[in-house]
Parts: sequence; structure tokens; C-alpha cells
Amino acid sequence: MSIQLSRTSYGKSAVRVMKLVKHADWHEIKEVEVCTLFEGEFEEAHTIGDNSNVLPTDTQKNTVFALAKDHPLNTIEDFGLHLAKHFLGQNPQIHKVRIELSQKQWTRINDQGSPHPKAYQRGGNEKWTAVIELTKDSTRIQSGIADLLILKTTDSGFSNFKRDALTTLKDTEDRIFATSLTAVWDYTSSATDFAALRESVQSNLLSSFANHKSLSVQHTLYDMGKRVLDTVEPVSKIDLDMPNKHNLLVNLAPFDMTNENEIFVVTDEPFGVIKGTMEKR
Amino acid sequence: MSIQLSRTSYGKSAVRVMKLVKHADWHEIKEVEVCTLFEGEFEEAHTIGDNSNVLPTDTQKNTVFALAKDHPLNTIEDFGLHLAKHFLGQNPQIHKVRIELSQKQWTRINDQGSPHPKAYQRGGNEKWTAVIELTKDSTRIQSGIADLLILKTTDSGFSNFKRDALTTLKDTEDRIFATSLTAVWDYTSSATDFAALRESVQSNLLSSFANHKSLSVQHTLYDMGKRVLDTVEPVSKIDLDMPNKHNLLVNLAPFDMTNENEIFVVTDEPFGVIKGTMEKR
Amino acid sequence: MSIQLSRTSYGKSAVRVMKLVKHADWHEIKEVEVCTLFEGEFEEAHTIGDNSNVLPTDTQKNTVFALAKDHPLNTIEDFGLHLAKHFLGQNPQIHKVRIELSQKQWTRINDQGSPHPKAYQRGGNEKWTAVIELTKDSTRIQSGIADLLILKTTDSGFSNFKRDALTTLKDTEDRIFATSLTAVWDYTSSATDFAALRESVQSNLLSSFANHKSLSVQHTLYDMGKRVLDTVEPVSKIDLDMPNKHNLLVNLAPFDMTNENEIFVVTDEPFGVIKGTMEKR
Amino acid sequence: MSIQLSRTSYGKSAVRVMKLVKHADWHEIKEVEVCTLFEGEFEEAHTIGDNSNVLPTDTQKNTVFALAKDHPLNTIEDFGLHLAKHFLGQNPQIHKVRIELSQKQWTRINDQGSPHPKAYQRGGNEKWTAVIELTKDSTRIQSGIADLLILKTTDSGFSNFKRDALTTLKDTEDRIFATSLTAVWDYTSSATDFAALRESVQSNLLSSFANHKSLSVQHTLYDMGKRVLDTVEPVSKIDLDMPNKHNLLVNLAPFDMTNENEIFVVTDEPFGVIKGTMEKR
Repeated sequence: MSIQLSRTSYGKSAVRVMKLVKHADWHEIKEVEVCTLFEGEFEEAHTIGDNSNVLPTDTQKNTVFALAKDHPLNTIEDFGLHLAKHFLGQNPQIHKVRIELSQKQWTRINDQGSPHPKAYQRGGNEKWTAVIELTKDSTRIQSGIADLLILKTTDSGFSNFKRDALTTLKDTEDRIFATSLTAVWDYTSSATDFAALRESVQSNLLSSFANHKSLSVQHTLYDMGKRVLDTVEPVSKIDLDMPNKHNLLVNLAPFDMTNENEIFVVTDEPFGVIKGTMEKR
Repeated sequence: MSIQLSRTSYGKSAVRVMKLVKHADWHEIKEVEVCTLFEGEFEEAHTIGDNSNVLPTDTQKNTVFALAKDHPLNTIEDFGLHLAKHFLGQNPQIHKVRIELSQKQWTRINDQGSPHPKAYQRGGNEKWTAVIELTKDSTRIQSGIADLLILKTTDSGFSNFKRDALTTLKDTEDRIFATSLTAVWDYTSSATDFAALRESVQSNLLSSFANHKSLSVQHTLYDMGKRVLDTVEPVSKIDLDMPNKHNLLVNLAPFDMTNENEIFVVTDEPFGVIKGTMEKR
Repeated sequence: MSIQLSRTSYGKSAVRVMKLVKHADWHEIKEVEVCTLFEGEFEEAHTIGDNSNVLPTDTQKNTVFALAKDHPLNTIEDFGLHLAKHFLGQNPQIHKVRIELSQKQWTRINDQGSPHPKAYQRGGNEKWTAVIELTKDSTRIQSGIADLLILKTTDSGFSNFKRDALTTLKDTEDRIFATSLTAVWDYTSSATDFAALRESVQSNLLSSFANHKSLSVQHTLYDMGKRVLDTVEPVSKIDLDMPNKHNLLVNLAPFDMTNENEIFVVTDEPFGVIKGTMEKR
Repeated sequence: MSIQLSRTSYGKSAVRVMKLVKHADWHEIKEVEVCTLFEGEFEEAHTIGDNSNVLPTDTQKNTVFALAKDHPLNTIEDFGLHLAKHFLGQNPQIHKVRIELSQKQWTRINDQGSPHPKAYQRGGNEKWTAVIELTKDSTRIQSGIADLLILKTTDSGFSNFKRDALTTLKDTEDRIFATSLTAVWDYTSSATDFAALRESVQSNLLSSFANHKSLSVQHTLYDMGKRVLDTVEPVSKIDLDMPNKHNLLVNLAPFDMTNENEIFVVTDEPFGVIKGTMEKR
């Protein structure tokens, strides 16, 4: 028997960079969190402690800040690709660079009816995400959205499901449907304008969610993914993760009250897990 | 020596209620979290385990849901007052009821340019808060905002501060000023339209923050509080808690780069604590 | 009408210091988190941006690290007092210093039956806490424990409570009693050996919790506090916060099973709030 | 172009069960959190909203509680396997069942020198984990540990690493090495006594960590994994995830103090990511 080191990766996570661009009368800010990960010729670092191939994670952090200085950070996809090319180009011992990025949302403060040119407030919970994987021979760019809390109050039911001896759930034609959406999508090679593509994917996801006659979370998840693939040409594949954040009808019968889908208890646990991947063929 | 039970309180926390109101063509939702707390004649519950004065916390939870059914939940202040009056009115053994409430923000999904009548997304991190304290002889209503992340990129400095042997900080005339604002305010007895008052307080806080020539966090905190007291007549007192969420300038000099307030590292720890209370006299 | 700045405080929070002491054959570590807060002559810092009285929060952070170098950090109470005296002694503009400290638990790794002299693992969730408040004329030292999760499986009931029209809870003589204990206690002026006092308080709290015939959370809270005051002479007052972390009996009747207090669902929300303060008179 | 639903899964997460077993003079408790996930013939649930194959996630939750009633919950591996067989056996539409489990640690309260038979406190941060994957033709059992915080104060260096123009890190022969260990291991088919195997894996991981002369996190990670594979016969493969939780040396030079590895600042962000998989061949 021998022991094989079958896979390794290392890097720096939670590198949080804020870039401020000052124009004459207005400013822009970008808040991006970066994780860098390398795979490659690191066997002897593990087996005998030879660090000569190991570019420190501290240097990776420095690199994120230094490269952010001269890059516009227009999109996290472009910045991630820039970082990946830098690391792969300078380090022949690295076979694969993976850059994970997320961007928090800031909107301009509404100051007496106008967006303020230099003051901001956090705009929503959701993050924009991207993952870049680069090797000598391949480039993979994924974009995504994480933690987008959405809820609809109509056109959602769940009935005629499989029952067994432990089933107590009743059919419903009318419930609250709430989820914390995480989406990740791949592109065909023709994608370049990542900002416009993101906007298009997000508006299609939201519009499908809002308007679909939902027979189950699965049913709506599929409609949302299909609509993106049908509509946003350079998207080749999409993963959707839509946990069912239950708003449960409160039983008011003991108090001689009827609850016609008016009063719900909001719960975090347990929650339904619903995931699906759709792709073009 | 004797042992005295000098203060007690009990209640139910994290009661999360969602109220859905269905109009013909559009819906409304309110997501409110409630904590109920009682003080009163509970000494023997502690000393000898006599529970005859103890209305269960489970009943308090039931009450929140049952009373939400018939109350419009137009504002958390009004709903909290309604709850407090119910508990105090039915329970002579209770001397003081405290109701703490917070409301999460939902905005309508933008569906191809129009707000959707029945679908929503989480709108910002911040929560609206209220605290009601009711006794036989007194009513106190406080409103507030919690976790409102705001940031400005100009008109913020900190200089000419006190120095000692352990001071290494340098004067700055230009820095990022970011905070997670928590505000709590009291009213004079004339307050009734809590929704309009809240909107007025929040817009004054944001406008002051955005436009103030800040010589320190303290300096801006005072301007924000003063502006609310000057402008929003029924507000008698305001507490502001404005932790300094440091965005630290990254030293790029080792890489022969200058960083003219362009690249910052976003940090959570440690953070500055800045608190102040202002009131009318 | 005039506007008065009725209260202010400022300082630095989440200063996390690790002190390592190397003895010949074994090491000691102390992980302490510190928050420093000042009150005093800071009115003009707020009203006109005059920072000449403002010792920067950055300097406060530096001071924590510099003073930790020469202090043994034997107890957080002693270190907190040392910090408070330093700040008050050097800064006449400060009227009151408040130092909040918490210490995380590390235990030695069990290496084949023996505690390792130089390797550790986190030992439990709970934190040890202390608060020092120092003015020219007064010293207050409080010690505490936070987030100590404890649970008992017997001798816990809740019955004969007050009922109203919204009460659905049933009497129980046998339930799981779980809480996340937070305790804070004051000393008479004779206290000096804070390590031994802490150990005594904690063992009395745990022993009372484990063995008390509990008729309610309130009933046990009182027994725990009383036992500390009866037993640990220099403790003059104790606050206990014992949220009722509900382990709810699962209804297995629909599956033709009886659940004789065997299977529970663990819940975080909602939870009961039970607080009490006891003091010697 | 057609759109294909290439992968789906669904289930229930965060099902938190507490099992209490009462012996004559002492009790046992097990706190286990379960996630159930199914893959199989669910295409039409997505494409046309046909739920006839969909066993509700609510039923999955019920099943966890009902099966916990008659199972000893001796190990999470055995309970997970029991659950997986139940679901796969009763549901021909399911092709693969995945059960994820984690168990929190409770230790008996030390009551005046003896472990209390019926009272407990949380024992450490770490969780025991298991993942079961079952199909008609295959069984995979993985065990693990998550969130085990460990730290060593000696025998840890990092030097002679690769440098580039953005490297500022200096060689060190003496640093604090702290990590939050997550380990997952696979078994050969001969494994049955999962409790004893877990104990053996954990003690080998800790002993290696404590005693290894570490030239890097990677170097120690490899030693830890190799030692498990060398020593614990039925373990065929192990993944280790050992984020470098930096304790950074504080620069006390500006205060004319030397810091000979005594005072560190504890940081959460950014952190190094170090992962590796080792297996027998």
C-alpha cells in the first residue's frame, strides 16, 4: 500500500477590496471580495516541506490590491480573469487558477429626490458572484447571484404529491412562496459584456418567478432556468438553488378565528432544498 | 443578610409574523418580529415555584399571531401599542409591558419596468424598529432604524486629535466614512402618524450624513441628531450609534505604486464605537 | 428650545489579543477580546469638530496591545483594571472609562492520555467576561459568563400557570430544560482573587442547575442566583439571563407511535426570555 | 437547440432531532441535525408540475423523527444508513439518496467532582459529521469532523517560499499555527464500528497536529492525513481543509518595545485556504 496525495489546492480567501474612482462631480465605488486558489506542482510542499513552489497566500492578497489599482473593476468577471491570467502567466508551477469573487450592492443615497453623487447605502442583501477557472488550455467563466430573497403571495400551490404512511402534509392551492435564490450560470465563448448579461439574466429570473403559475418549487425553478436559456443567448447552462423558506399558516382555530391565508409564522428551520441544473443541447 | 430579587422580566422573543393583505389587484405584506416582556408580581414564581401569576410565554406568542389577524399592522408602533394594551388590560399582576418590534423591508419586484403587485424582493439590510413600554400610568414609544449601512467618499477627515506616546495614527483630510447606523428616537406626546415621522427622520439622517463636512464621526453624528430634532417637531430625543467601519488605505508603496485614496481594505474588526444622545430642552 | 448633547461615549471594540507565555517546557495562551469606552469632555468634538480632547480609537487599540506585553493577563478583571487606570490616569478629559473584556476557552490537546504542553483545542462555547468602570471616585468590577449552553433531562416541569382565552399550552411535569446561560455578578470591595471567585461562582451555578427540582425556569434561575450569593462571600449581586431554548416534543401520534419524552425537535425561534437580578441586602 | 434538465435534487435540511434515552439512574442524549436529499425520476415535476413522484420534504422531516424513535442513534453513520435504506426501499422513483448528518457535542456537567447522570453542557465547538449516499447498486459512507479549532505555539515555520515582485512576507521559523479543521474520510467496505473508528481518526489527527515539526500548513496537513491512513486500517481516503487562521505578530517597535512572539492580533479575515486529499493506492 502506498499513500497518494490525489488533490490539493491553496490560496487566500476573504480579501475584501474597496475601489474608489473619483470623477469631477461624482464618485464610483466597487466593493469586491476575492478568493484565490491554486492547483499544481505542490506535492513536495506537502511531503517534505519544500516551499520553493509556494507563492505565499500573503502575496496573493497583495496581488489583489495591487492589480485592483490599475484595473477598472468594471465587472468582477473581467477583474477575475485579469487576476487569473496574472497568476498563471507568472507561475509555471501552477496548473490551474481559480478566482472566486463576490460584489456587494451599494446604491446612491436619495437626497431630497436626487441620487447623491458621493454617498451610498447598502442596496439589498444579494451579492453578485463570479468564478474564473483558468488553465493553459482552458477558460471557464461563471457568473452568479447569491442570497437574493424573493417572495410571491399568489400563484403558488403544491398538491397531488406522493403520499406514504408518514405523510401529514395537505394539498394546498394557495401559499406563500419564499426563497433565497442562488444562481450560477456558464457562458458560451461569445460572452463579453458581462454587465449587460447579468442584468438580463437577473431580470428574466425575477420576471419568471413573479409571474409563473407555480405547481411546486421545482416547477418554477425549471421555468426560471428555461427562460434564461431561451432568452439570454450566450448563457449555456444554469444552476438554481432555491431553498423553500417556509412561511407556515398559523392555526388560529383554537381561538375561534379563521385564517384565510392571512397570518403566517416565518421560519428558518427546517427548510426545503430544491436544486436543478439546466443546459442547452 | 437577606437576598432580594431586585428585578425580573420574562417574555417571548423572536416571534416572527408575516401578515398578508389581499386587495383585488394587489397584495401587501408585513414581516414583523416581536418580543414581549413583562415585569410585575412574579416574586413567588421565583422563590417557591408558584406559577399562578405566570401567563406562559407560549400564550404570549399565540397572542401576537391572534392580534395580528385583526390589526392592520400599518405601523409597528401602532401594533406594539395594541399588544401592550391587551396584555396590561388583562393581567393586573403585570406592572409593565415592554414590546420590542422590528420590521424587515420588502420592495416589489421590478417586472419589466413596473412594480409587481404580488411579488417582492428584500429591500436593503436595515430594519425598522420600535419599543413600547406601557404601565398603568405611563406610555413610552420609541422608534428606530437598525443596521443601515451607509458610506460617503468625500468630506470626511480626522485631524488635530490628542496624541500620546502610543499614538501612531496620522492626520487625514480625506477618508472613506462608513457606518452601520442604529438610531432610536422618542416622541413628544403629540406623535400619531408614525409612518410619516419615520420617513421624515430617516430622510433627514441620510441627507445630513451625505452632505455634512465631517471633521470626525462624532461631528457628523451630532449634525445628524441635531437636524432631526430641529426638523421633525414631535421628536424629543434621539440616540445614534455609529460604529466606524474602517476602510483602511492599502499601502502600495512596496510595489512602487501610489495609492491616492483609491484602494482600501474593508475590515470588520476592530471597529470604532461612537455613540451619542441628543435631546430638546 | 435648545438641543443638548446629554450623553456620549466612544472607543474601540473587537480588539482581539493573543498573549503567548513561553516557559521552559510548556506554554500558556490567553485569547482576550477588549472594548474600550470613554465618557468625558467631548462636547466640542461633537458640536464644532474640535478633536483636541479625542484620543483616537486607533491609539486605544495600540494601548491594549502595548499594555498586554508587560501584564501577565492572569485574569481579565486584573487586565481590565490595569487598562482603565492607564487611560484615566493619562487623560484628565476622560471622566469615566469602561473596559469590556471576554476570554475564549482553550484546553490542552489530549495527546495519548496526557495534556500537550504546547498544543490546544477550543474548549466549549462559553466565554468568560468582565466589565470595569472606573472614575476618579469609583471602581466597579463585574465578572460574568456568556453563552454557556446547559441542558437537563429531568426534574423540570411547568404547570398550574395562569391561563387565558389564548392559552393552548398544557401542564407538564417532565420536560427538557435547556438554556444558554449569561451571568454577570458584582463584588463587594474585598474581592481580589478573581480566578478563584469565578471558578466558585461557575461551579455553584452548574451544581444548582443540575440538581434543582425545577417548577419553572424562573424557579431555577432564583435557586442558582441565591446559591451563589449564599456561598460565594464577595459576590454582592448577580444577574442571570436564561433564555428557554425549547426542545419541543414531536407529535408521533399520526404515525401510531407514542412519544414518551424520547424524541424532541430542537428549535432556536421563538424562545422564552427569563431574566432576574438578585442581591444581598 | 433543446434544453435539458441535467441534474436535480431535493430534500429537507436542518431537521434537528434530540433523542433522550432514560436508563434507571442515568440518561443519554443525542442531538443530531439531518439533511435528506433525493435524486431520481423528477423530470416531470419540473417540466409540467406533475408531483406524483414527489415525496414531500415535510414527509422526509416526519420520517427523520419517526425513525429516530426506534433507532438507538448510537452513531450518525448507522442512523443515516437506516434512513437511506428506508427512503430507497419505499420509493422506486428515487435513484440516489444522500443523507447528511451532524452531531453536536454534549458532556456531562461536573457536579462536585463527578459527572452528573442527567445534566449536560456543550462540549466544544466541533461537530461530528457523516454523509451516506445510497443507490440500488452502491453504498458510500463518509465520516467527518467540522469546525474543530486547534492551535499550536511551537514547531511551526514558513520559509524559503517562492517570491515575486509583490511579495512582502518574511521568513519565519516560529509562529502560531491555528486552524479550524474540517476532515472527511471514506472507508473500505470492512468498516462497521464507526464510533471506535471516529475516535481513532480524531486522536491521530490531533496527535500529529500537536507534535509535527511544521514547515508549512501543507506539510502538517499531509502528515495528519498520512498518519490516519497509516494507522486506521479501514480508512481509505481523507480530505483535510485547514484554513490558516492568522494570529499576526503585533508591531510594537513604534513604542520602543520588542515583541518576541508574545503578542498577536487574532484575525478572521483574510485567511489562508489549505486543502488536500490523500488516499491509499
